Amino acid sequence: MDAYLAVVSKREVREYEPRPVPEDILRRILEAARATGSSKNSQPWRFIVLRDPARRRALGAFMRSSHNLDRCTAAIAIVLLNDVQRFDAGRVAQNLMVAAWALGIGSCPNSVHPDHVDEARALLAVPAGASIATVISLGYPARGQPRPRTKADPEKVRKRIDRLPLEQLASDERFSG
Amino acid sequence: MDAYLAVVSKREVREYEPRPVPEDILRRILEAARATGSSKNSQPWRFIVLRDPARRRALGAFMRSSHNLDRCTAAIAIVLLNDVQRFDAGRVAQNLMVAAWALGIGSCPNSVHPDHVDEARALLAVPAGASIATVISLGYPARGQPRPRTKADPEKVRKRIDRLPLEQLASDERFSG
Repeated sequence: MDAYLAVVSKREVREYEPRPVPEDILRRILEAARATGSSKNSQPWRFIVLRDPARRRALGAFMRSSHNLDRCTAAIAIVLLNDVQRFDAGRVAQNLMVAAWALGIGSCPNSVHPDHVDEARALLAVPAGASIATVISLGYPARGQPRPRTKADPEKVRKRIDRLPLEQLASDERFSG
Repeated sequence: MDAYLAVVSKREVREYEPRPVPEDILRRILEAARATGSSKNSQPWRFIVLRDPARRRALGAFMRSSHNLDRCTAAIAIVLLNDVQRFDAGRVAQNLMVAAWALGIGSCPNSVHPDHVDEARALLAVPAGASIATVISLGYPARGQPRPRTKADPEKVRKRIDRLPLEQLASDERFSG
């Protein structure tokens, strides 16, 4: 898939086909995450691959919504080794998801419910000082969901998306609000 | 450029050719940023395009390092409308930079020096409550810098990068430190 098209067309996917994500694709997704840049190349992250459906369901109970973790066929928790580099956590999550999209896999970021942070950390054995930045659900998009396409025109794709117009988002030299 | 290759090969670029980033490419980069997903589609960001070298130099004085803003040929400040969605700010920054890379443009994220947050905000007229999440320097990579290639093999690219081995970064079902 063309890189610009992948970035512009990547949508969140919340319903998944039952067929699993192949191991070699999971590994390529993890390698894309690994390649991500971070402040002073600190790589302040670790990745936990969740293949066991029972564990995903257990974790789902501690998320803001259990829906995606109940339905996906794999997930990757991004653990941040500190509590300050959430900007870098967003960078690695986006790289991981765009790479997945390019490989035909849909994804969605999911956050831990603020009332269940400790239970989620205990379930994944996340040590003190580290935190679960996000849990990315993964899977082949079910019928009716957004799906990766290699032939689409980026111009047409971006006209259809539900976003503020660029004129409202961007300004020259100073904030204009 | 192939999407998976773009994600894996994107490196930070800190020295730039003098030729400017064309306006149509700047616009495509902004459109890619605009397309980024965010929590509840809140789009908690605004983009300030910095074309004026004098203003970039002035802003550079308030950054952790002025180097990239002195040398780049354009920059985009990502303003976060609140102080909590830094994960989403990282997502949009990564989308913007991968799209730029796919279009032949090098980039690097730059952060405001903690001692100069107010001066930087004043210079860009950023309102109370909003913050400058990052300033992305942009330009064609100078000789000797990493540069976007369309023919590279992602396997070879990722073997060369300065990152921890995947075995140290990833684990199954639970954190392993």
